[in-house]
Amino acid sequence: MRWLSAIISQTHRSLHSSRKLFSTPRPSFLLVRVMAPTPVDAAEDTLRKDLAHKQSTIQAQADTVRGLKASGASKPDIDAAIRALNALKLEKASIETQLQAAVSGGSANRDSFRQALVNTLERRLFYIPSFKIYGGVAGLYDYGPPGCAIKSNVLGFWRQHFVLEENMLEVDCPSVTPEIVLKASGHVEKFTDLMVKDEKTGTCYRADHLLKDYCKEKLEKDLTITAEKAAELKHVMAVLDDLSAAELGAKIKEYGITAPDTKNSLSDPYPFNLMFQTSIGPSGVLPGYMRPETAQGIFVNFKELYYYNGNKLPFAAAQIGQAFRNEISPRQGLLRVREFTLAEIEHFVDPEDKSHPKFSDVGNLEFLMFPREEQMTGQSAKLFQIGEAVSKGIVNNETLGYFIGRVYLFLTRLGIDKERLRFRQHLSNEMAHYAADCWDAEIECSYGWIECVGIADRSAYDLRAHSEKSDVSLVAREKYPEPREVEKLVIAPVKKELGMAFKGNQKMVTEALEAMDEETALEMKNDLESKGEVEFHVCTLGKTVTIKKNMVSISKERRKEHQRVFTPSVIEPSFGIGRIIYCLFEHAFYTRPSKAGDEQLNVFRFPPLVAPIKCTVFPLVQSQQYEEVAKFISKSLTAAGISHKIDITGTSIGKRYARTDELGVPFAITVDSTSSVTIRERDSKDQIRVDVEKVASLVKEVTDGRINWQDDVLKIYPLHSSGSAED
Amino acid sequence: MRWLSAIISQTHRSLHSSRKLFSTPRPSFLLVRVMAPTPVDAAEDTLRKDLAHKQSTIQAQADTVRGLKASGASKPDIDAAIRALNALKLEKASIETQLQAAVSGGSANRDSFRQALVNTLERRLFYIPSFKIYGGVAGLYDYGPPGCAIKSNVLGFWRQHFVLEENMLEVDCPSVTPEIVLKASGHVEKFTDLMVKDEKTGTCYRADHLLKDYCKEKLEKDLTITAEKAAELKHVMAVLDDLSAAELGAKIKEYGITAPDTKNSLSDPYPFNLMFQTSIGPSGVLPGYMRPETAQGIFVNFKELYYYNGNKLPFAAAQIGQAFRNEISPRQGLLRVREFTLAEIEHFVDPEDKSHPKFSDVGNLEFLMFPREEQMTGQSAKLFQIGEAVSKGIVNNETLGYFIGRVYLFLTRLGIDKERLRFRQHLSNEMAHYAADCWDAEIECSYGWIECVGIADRSAYDLRAHSEKSDVSLVAREKYPEPREVEKLVIAPVKKELGMAFKGNQKMVTEALEAMDEETALEMKNDLESKGEVEFHVCTLGKTVTIKKNMVSISKERRKEHQRVFTPSVIEPSFGIGRIIYCLFEHAFYTRPSKAGDEQLNVFRFPPLVAPIKCTVFPLVQSQQYEEVAKFISKSLTAAGISHKIDITGTSIGKRYARTDELGVPFAITVDSTSSVTIRERDSKDQIRVDVEKVASLVKEVTDGRINWQDDVLKIYPLHSSGSAED
Repeated sequence: MRWLSAIISQTHRSLHSSRKLFSTPRPSFLLVRVMAPTPVDAAEDTLRKDLAHKQSTIQAQADTVRGLKASGASKPDIDAAIRALNALKLEKASIETQLQAAVSGGSANRDSFRQALVNTLERRLFYIPSFKIYGGVAGLYDYGPPGCAIKSNVLGFWRQHFVLEENMLEVDCPSVTPEIVLKASGHVEKFTDLMVKDEKTGTCYRADHLLKDYCKEKLEKDLTITAEKAAELKHVMAVLDDLSAAELGAKIKEYGITAPDTKNSLSDPYPFNLMFQTSIGPSGVLPGYMRPETAQGIFVNFKELYYYNGNKLPFAAAQIGQAFRNEISPRQGLLRVREFTLAEIEHFVDPEDKSHPKFSDVGNLEFLMFPREEQMTGQSAKLFQIGEAVSKGIVNNETLGYFIGRVYLFLTRLGIDKERLRFRQHLSNEMAHYAADCWDAEIECSYGWIECVGIADRSAYDLRAHSEKSDVSLVAREKYPEPREVEKLVIAPVKKELGMAFKGNQKMVTEALEAMDEETALEMKNDLESKGEVEFHVCTLGKTVTIKKNMVSISKERRKEHQRVFTPSVIEPSFGIGRIIYCLFEHAFYTRPSKAGDEQLNVFRFPPLVAPIKCTVFPLVQSQQYEEVAKFISKSLTAAGISHKIDITGTSIGKRYARTDELGVPFAITVDSTSSVTIRERDSKDQIRVDVEKVASLVKEVTDGRINWQDDVLKIYPLHSSGSAED
Repeated sequence: MRWLSAIISQTHRSLHSSRKLFSTPRPSFLLVRVMAPTPVDAAEDTLRKDLAHKQSTIQAQADTVRGLKASGASKPDIDAAIRALNALKLEKASIETQLQAAVSGGSANRDSFRQALVNTLERRLFYIPSFKIYGGVAGLYDYGPPGCAIKSNVLGFWRQHFVLEENMLEVDCPSVTPEIVLKASGHVEKFTDLMVKDEKTGTCYRADHLLKDYCKEKLEKDLTITAEKAAELKHVMAVLDDLSAAELGAKIKEYGITAPDTKNSLSDPYPFNLMFQTSIGPSGVLPGYMRPETAQGIFVNFKELYYYNGNKLPFAAAQIGQAFRNEISPRQGLLRVREFTLAEIEHFVDPEDKSHPKFSDVGNLEFLMFPREEQMTGQSAKLFQIGEAVSKGIVNNETLGYFIGRVYLFLTRLGIDKERLRFRQHLSNEMAHYAADCWDAEIECSYGWIECVGIADRSAYDLRAHSEKSDVSLVAREKYPEPREVEKLVIAPVKKELGMAFKGNQKMVTEALEAMDEETALEMKNDLESKGEVEFHVCTLGKTVTIKKNMVSISKERRKEHQRVFTPSVIEPSFGIGRIIYCLFEHAFYTRPSKAGDEQLNVFRFPPLVAPIKCTVFPLVQSQQYEEVAKFISKSLTAAGISHKIDITGTSIGKRYARTDELGVPFAITVDSTSSVTIRERDSKDQIRVDVEKVASLVKEVTDGRINWQDDVLKIYPLHSSGSAED
């Protein structure tokens, strides 16, 4: 019998799928389709069968026509057969059109919506492809002034909503990270994507992307494939993430997939590590990486933070910062980038008590959830009360549920449409073996349902991994009210005997013996007692040694314990800030006709909290008096910390409104007298009249979220002129 | 005659000194000392001379004693001579003590102050050496909870004070930067420090550090060196930054300096690039670096930002972000790190009009300035009104002066002591050739005067560099009210002739000709007319070619121009946020005796704006009623966005005050009734009594800076008990 030392029993076997948050949006909706076809799929299936049937009918009719001609049939007979053939061809064309529509869905609409949005975002500098004057670099973007302001507002609100409200311990760690930290976390070994190379040019591609593109193109463009073939292609797309390098390579060969640009043949797939590598210090001997997530900076500080918190659980630490992923071939614009801002929370909790004192604050919230069960049985996301989801055991525990509720509040207050937001539970094959439960906040946009926040109960995995690698104990303690008697396994290697038997290797054998888990140790005890010796595999030596009875004593002892020592569980809500912002752009964007009705004007309906600029100030007409009032208001807005734009250029009011609507500015202040001014709200176009002295404090109250336009402002300041007046 | 093509005329020759902001604090104060000894130096000089004189007197007296003994003189005579010798030895010892004190200055005091500060900072997690459980990495630090909160407050105030008040365009660019951008800026070639290696172990050191350490140690510890030798060592320290690799190497050899740890011999100094290198994408063909500053992200976006600003000058862009420097051997704790946060402003302005519309807002500010003149003549920093400094031409222009004033306000409002803040002008040898004027905000701390903000007028250098490298024109335009007639140089290469003469090189010759500046071109015109041909050096070819008269036509033409096209100047205030925060720690830290007088308690006197936690809330005694009041106040503080700590553990009030004073919490709210509570101010220990409902809004007003404790709060709420009462 072979014995495995416990040292490597804690492998990182599921890291690829657990830690790839923001790396690959798992195509789970496809999985669902394959397992239980949705109505759309059923229709598509029928159409493919109809098409195949029609094709063979046409073939038969064509044969009939040919036969009639060959047999010298009468012209009217032949003509009738040809008419029937043509009718069949028309029917086939109609089926093709329906099938085309079924497989491409609303993709044309989505594409044109996205194009209009992206045009606006780039033209108004919400973002800019980085280093544009040098041709840009794929996967790197700058936030221009309005984008940068939105990001700053989102992060400010995140700090208020999470760090301040929950009294979290915020830390700020460097991005440059030495290799040992990322070896412990598993990233050095496992944080990879499978890559293939063009065998002639060396151009690199993601293997799964090429296979997916092939399947998608085939499904959408080739109407001749059979329903069976279509099902196969869909199945491949569904299991894409689970394919090994060999399986991916085999499929690429089977389908004859070549390099997209050159049609050259492709190499076999091999893993490419997604971290940007560098070297710390001048000697070149200390390898480092740009961190792929911010979480590790918190884990390595657990001991300090636990002490800072008065050695008490639970507590949460938080970090906002840059993370880096050297994507093989970035696509999907702002959703898949090589450098991005993460905001991460690590909530440390006693694994035996995951209740949350503030759970009742969110318990009644109701929103779209998509539990494992619903996914496996082909249903869609449903409205759940989070309190109910926890009490029914759909969500593993209160703390996880509390964070799901808080994330819902966070996203919807930013302006994410609650109809296009769902919490999707990971299927068991998506989760790491150590994870207790995982939910993703997914937001629907033109690219589909996008994972924007991951909320995972990662149990004790991360702290254990760093504890093992660093030899620093990362545990919490709970004092018992009075000492308890417990039974404990005691493994006592006999160093003298081990030393004589294994010489220089004694230390490693000793450590391996001491690291055995209880089950292994008891099994060894039995074997030693019955056989006198056992074979024992020592990982650190890479070989198996023979352990004799006199080399180790294994026993169970009763002793008094004064405290419980345990590794805390960690619940990790992790926010992809750039993805949230992009989805926010999509949910906020709409167009409406201009006053003259001759063009469509762009508007972003950002809530005041998020809006990059809170208001504009302009005089109705160019006049020194009005200009002075405008400057007075501008000064008082600045003093109140409200970002705004003052425009005294004398452009027409209509044009100025259009310009600021397109930046999502919620309020426009027009100076049309020296004592009071009008304030126009962006979406309703409603206007109210407010005293010059009160403007700044009113705008501040609304943008701070203390009051809102519809329910509060319009009650205090009656409508001066409504939106319809402007039209 | 040799002609230089204009393409390389714009070399980056002074980049090392101009762009090394936050790399090496220039030892300018040493320069001053050498040029004009200060009183301290004069005393030291005298003492060294006295010591040498006393030593030779002792030598002579010892000879006398020996002579008396040899000549068999009487015992009383010999004894008298010995007594005289001993007296001289005592006098020498006294001079040595004085000299020791003179050279080491207050360094013992400074060291113990710093030790006390750093102990407190590390114990209370203001910062943590990064990856501590793995032994840490030199030059990398985490901000723990209070440090992180301070950083966030400083950046928030920076945004309010600069971005919002000045309507700047804030952008947010990635840290990963492709090589071409940093080639254009000169960093790939010039961003280096000189390094030496231990010839046996390969350990790396900064060459200038070793030489400086040697000189410093010699000056402080070796009292036998002559005044001349001391002057020489000081001179070496003063010119350290100007020494070439060869000169540094020669000095290291001359002084016999060896590796500090092993005493092995050292290699010759050679340049080491300080950027962290990496590779973008999977192919390995696109080299990249982690940016060493944020400024380049703004420069490459100039065209977009100018357009965003309505094609108008002046405007400023700003960026807050991480920057990276792979220091050879980081020291000085938080002052010299490998990853740090910069906040940079690039203010683009017409080079012909550097006035500033808001200059009068700061003109009357008076603070310590240290102009070039004062440094060269051995004077110290003096109080100047910034308005006067600009009008007298000490500061180059109004815009530069405006930013100096704004930086002064920014730093002092954060809590930097204005007596320990000075603006030091760069000496001409410190500035890049293209720079118009540079001033550093230097803050005095236990490490000396530290450069924390650089404010430089960099003229058109950066935009020109990127324009040349990218072939994208980065210019501004000013429309003339009416067209103007101007004389223009026209260089028209005759491509046919050049093609015949230079074949494949024609393009490079043509470009070099077109790129000539006016003076060079006119000289060529004259030479061609007089001699028929000239020698012309084409840099891109690396050789000199012969240009004949028929190959190029050079003429001056008059034409009408409708606009002026020019490259804007840029004025760049650049803030090292980590350095500012460290200096703030030093200026805010003090100790005071405990109530019992048995220990010294630590206090940080952070202004409310900066304080990591704004207030604490605790019940005077453990009681359910008081606890509920405390929770009510805590909720209202959270709603107002005020960070605070609630402590219901029942620790003694004195201990709780001590704990929070050490975190710099400005206000402590003690619940001692259900209707009103006391608020205690940290530094004065004064207490006032405030209604429970009014607590949150009062604290908010003070922390927002709208009112202050001494002038406003104490007038509204009379003193309930004063600081002396607590003692």
